[in-house]
Amino acid sequence: MKLLSFTRNGSASFGAVLGDGVFDLQPRLGARYPTLRFALVADAQEEIRRLLDGASPDFALSEISYLPPIPDPEKIICVGRNYGEHVKEGNNAATERPMLFPRYPSAHVGHGQNIVRPFVSDRLDYEGELACVIGRYARHVPASRALEYIAGYTCFNDGSVRDWQKHTHQLMQGKTFWRSGAIGPWIVTADEIPDPSALNLSTKVNGAEMQNSSTSQMIFDIPYLIEYISTIIDLQPGDIIATGTPEGVGLHRKPPVFLKQGDVVEITLSSIGTLRNAVIDERPPA
Amino acid sequence: MKLLSFTRNGSASFGAVLGDGVFDLQPRLGARYPTLRFALVADAQEEIRRLLDGASPDFALSEISYLPPIPDPEKIICVGRNYGEHVKEGNNAATERPMLFPRYPSAHVGHGQNIVRPFVSDRLDYEGELACVIGRYARHVPASRALEYIAGYTCFNDGSVRDWQKHTHQLMQGKTFWRSGAIGPWIVTADEIPDPSALNLSTKVNGAEMQNSSTSQMIFDIPYLIEYISTIIDLQPGDIIATGTPEGVGLHRKPPVFLKQGDVVEITLSSIGTLRNAVIDERPPA
Repeated sequence: MKLLSFTRNGSASFGAVLGDGVFDLQPRLGARYPTLRFALVADAQEEIRRLLDGASPDFALSEISYLPPIPDPEKIICVGRNYGEHVKEGNNAATERPMLFPRYPSAHVGHGQNIVRPFVSDRLDYEGELACVIGRYARHVPASRALEYIAGYTCFNDGSVRDWQKHTHQLMQGKTFWRSGAIGPWIVTADEIPDPSALNLSTKVNGAEMQNSSTSQMIFDIPYLIEYISTIIDLQPGDIIATGTPEGVGLHRKPPVFLKQGDVVEITLSSIGTLRNAVIDERPPA
Repeated sequence: MKLLSFTRNGSASFGAVLGDGVFDLQPRLGARYPTLRFALVADAQEEIRRLLDGASPDFALSEISYLPPIPDPEKIICVGRNYGEHVKEGNNAATERPMLFPRYPSAHVGHGQNIVRPFVSDRLDYEGELACVIGRYARHVPASRALEYIAGYTCFNDGSVRDWQKHTHQLMQGKTFWRSGAIGPWIVTADEIPDPSALNLSTKVNGAEMQNSSTSQMIFDIPYLIEYISTIIDLQPGDIIATGTPEGVGLHRKPPVFLKQGDVVEITLSSIGTLRNAVIDERPPA
């Protein structure tokens, strides 16, 4: 099942993908689950499955504007240096524990929307990643049971403003610029991805492949990440964990490649789909 | 005006302090502003002032359990190494730009509630700080106008789990443990604090003074912080910026002092009040 959030005719909604169409869940479930974040809990997922059984789409995918699948998560926790070859290309050392940093909701756009290069930098970079979306309250969850807490998976562009990322040794400053990243197009529910460590991950810029790896190459796999993070703090339905990027980022290419207006970034994960975004320049304030 | 969030008889509410009592705003404004976060906008503040004019309290402060004044902020952005003497005591170098890291809402308790020392660490430390609370949508705000975007100020305990903070060079892991910090007791609105860089800040543990400084000692003052952060991302009403701690943290005392069950931490800011919390140990999961 593919779940997504979108706007259509100016109104925000959420639904499920049926072929080339959308089954609109807002009119059916919105009174109880105002956004998809609330409808990720297990009971709602079961209800959505029953509604979809034999259903027809309400309108075409081409009629919607995609939002991030969860437009309003409480947390978006990102993992740095989680692929060995990416650690090497940056001449960095692997860490003994996961390296965590945050992004905020408004740092992302949905599939098909424009990523924004801030006017204060010319060093905007892509990072293709697999993200998992939490479906149940999770606190002190052992790795052995962690996959039970995942509602589904989506593609993630951890768009990074490289010079601001280096203002201090905290990455956050370059990692949460307004609309510098993207999430989507949809969440593929966990029942369709029994093994999230067996997905192919690729990133293209203007059609040229820049990253190609497998989620099997993660240093800290998703079960470990959930155990580690849920030891620190509770995870809520809709929280997003972005699991790190493989080698091939623009910063470490020779010469470096940074995104500019008109570029198109495509992040593809097998079993999920392709997150595609063009880049535009932010206009300085008047 | 002092604004606060609380529970009473099991129900969450928000209100204003009147002497030793509370004027309950939930029954009067809750239909339009479900939590205090929504009532920080300028129009609502004006309405609250009119309601308070000549009003009597609905019940005593002693009858409530304090919540963090904003229980549900979208962002809690903390600033590291923002007092010169604290930078020195850690044998660190000052940074040329503010060092930012996040905390999440459930990492905090309200005034009078117990801070939790996680069972995975015996290195829980206090950090007394001034926090400002955003009152208006803020993006690309110049420092010269930044104070106009602040709804008010409160006390902040940036409770830090020192060993986890050092798992990697990202501070976040030790900075957002569940209920490891505190905010409150209330927000003093900005009209009562024309100069937030002239407040005395002190922290006591079990009555002994551990930190005593002035917010005049910040390296990056609040106007600069708002300009810097709002260049990166939009700030929303209710967002919290914790402005860093002065010298005297437990980690850098000789010998180091860490918090243990039964300890009481008091953070006092002139013009605001005292945030007081006892420490309890987390029980390991069964």
